[in-house]
Amino acid sequence: MRVGLIGLGNMGYRMAERLLDEGFQLIVYNRTRERALPLAERGAEVASSPRELAYRADVIIDMVSDEAAVRNTLLSEDGAITGARPGAVVVEMSTLYPQFVRELEEAARERDIGLLDAPVLGSTTQAREGRLSIMVGGDEDVYERARPVLDALGSHRLVGPVGMGTAYKLVINAILISMVGVMAEGLALAEAMGVDPESALEVMGEHPVGKAAGYYWRRMLDDSAPVRFALRLAEKDMRYVLRTAADLVRELPIMAEVQQTFLRAKRLGLGDLDYSKVFRSLED
Amino acid sequence: MRVGLIGLGNMGYRMAERLLDEGFQLIVYNRTRERALPLAERGAEVASSPRELAYRADVIIDMVSDEAAVRNTLLSEDGAITGARPGAVVVEMSTLYPQFVRELEEAARERDIGLLDAPVLGSTTQAREGRLSIMVGGDEDVYERARPVLDALGSHRLVGPVGMGTAYKLVINAILISMVGVMAEGLALAEAMGVDPESALEVMGEHPVGKAAGYYWRRMLDDSAPVRFALRLAEKDMRYVLRTAADLVRELPIMAEVQQTFLRAKRLGLGDLDYSKVFRSLED
Repeated sequence: MRVGLIGLGNMGYRMAERLLDEGFQLIVYNRTRERALPLAERGAEVASSPRELAYRADVIIDMVSDEAAVRNTLLSEDGAITGARPGAVVVEMSTLYPQFVRELEEAARERDIGLLDAPVLGSTTQAREGRLSIMVGGDEDVYERARPVLDALGSHRLVGPVGMGTAYKLVINAILISMVGVMAEGLALAEAMGVDPESALEVMGEHPVGKAAGYYWRRMLDDSAPVRFALRLAEKDMRYVLRTAADLVRELPIMAEVQQTFLRAKRLGLGDLDYSKVFRSLED
Repeated sequence: MRVGLIGLGNMGYRMAERLLDEGFQLIVYNRTRERALPLAERGAEVASSPRELAYRADVIIDMVSDEAAVRNTLLSEDGAITGARPGAVVVEMSTLYPQFVRELEEAARERDIGLLDAPVLGSTTQAREGRLSIMVGGDEDVYERARPVLDALGSHRLVGPVGMGTAYKLVINAILISMVGVMAEGLALAEAMGVDPESALEVMGEHPVGKAAGYYWRRMLDDSAPVRFALRLAEKDMRYVLRTAADLVRELPIMAEVQQTFLRAKRLGLGDLDYSKVFRSLED
């Protein structure tokens, strides 16, 4: 089975390494080609466009940042859906929103290509080790065709038709990101009131909220903590959450304020930092 | 040592039972006297006003709902600070805000009465069993005088001068309540998108946020879950959080939206339910 992988960002790159470890014939594409060269030394082919990549692959993974990127990598003249052969499967692993994912499926179906939306949960370390958690939306038979590749990347489950993988991801990320927004305001409040964060955590003890506060406060206060999830991507995910909720005529006033908070942090230049660093936009 | 306890609400009543178990001579006061009668059968005296109660007690616990109630129970002509003898200690255990607690201390000091702010964390069950977690603000010597009573009620620590017990409590409750607001929006979003909450929890697994989501979602969806923390008190606490932050010139836009969400739920008649039931105000 020949696997194509588009997008060698923090996650995509580790997934490519993992697929090479697992013995797949791998073709990669990245906008900046240099990023692909160490993988080429390990035996990956490097395609010059998503379209070329797709033509040579049975299963095509797309792992990029947002809708604009996916319009390029999948839907454009040089895109993978344009280039894939009938019977191929495109596994869209970027975090998008359900309506757009269904648009991708329609475009794929017209060319007799299968499409799954399969966003992931997990760190880059988990990606490297094939321990991602993958929520898949799509048809059962398409899912079966992609199974060997999904098996190599982590645990996965079919949660419904195309769009549902994304729905699960958006619900979970909406909670995770909002939680970080709350914890950041809580930490800023503690500092303003002269409350020692470690003492407050001791008081909260084993309560699940105390555990969550400890988890994020330490990350907020640790300047050397690695970037596990870029702030600009968190802001984008919240935008997709709100767009989807609005389509369903559901207001989410708290989460709307979370999105604004992350947007402000992005404007202040914190977009490439870990999303926990939204805290810095609230500090004095 | 004679202990007075003002306010036989959900928490105060259990604390009174605990103090009787522990052998304290107890005098109680409650606005509606009937609530005190079962305690009288167990040996508690029932005072006809906080003032009368305070005159006969060495340590006076105040455990009522909000600032307006405390103005009655402590500061009014019939209040405990008006009635207490010099050398007595008032332990204010209601959740208030630091500036008001410092006002109470000034009033107490004028009459040579010690004051501690000692808000509690824990359920009514924990109150009944003397397992509350108590954050105390005040002078060391006043704290020592109240220690036997605090020992009977739970674990306690002196966290700073008067006002700091309240500061810790507000930071912790701000996070707890905001977390519940986020989880409620997350659950409403899941339902709107057709995402099964239990499946989403399985995907989140052991992540601290998944644990917190599980904890609150089950409480939101369980109509028979007991009232552990009344929604109207959560709304009041968020109001005190925002008031305090504004005094410190700190904006908390996410938490402000949380307060509005709880206020709306209160207006919709959900004030006496458990605060997790804020979810009902978001459901279709």
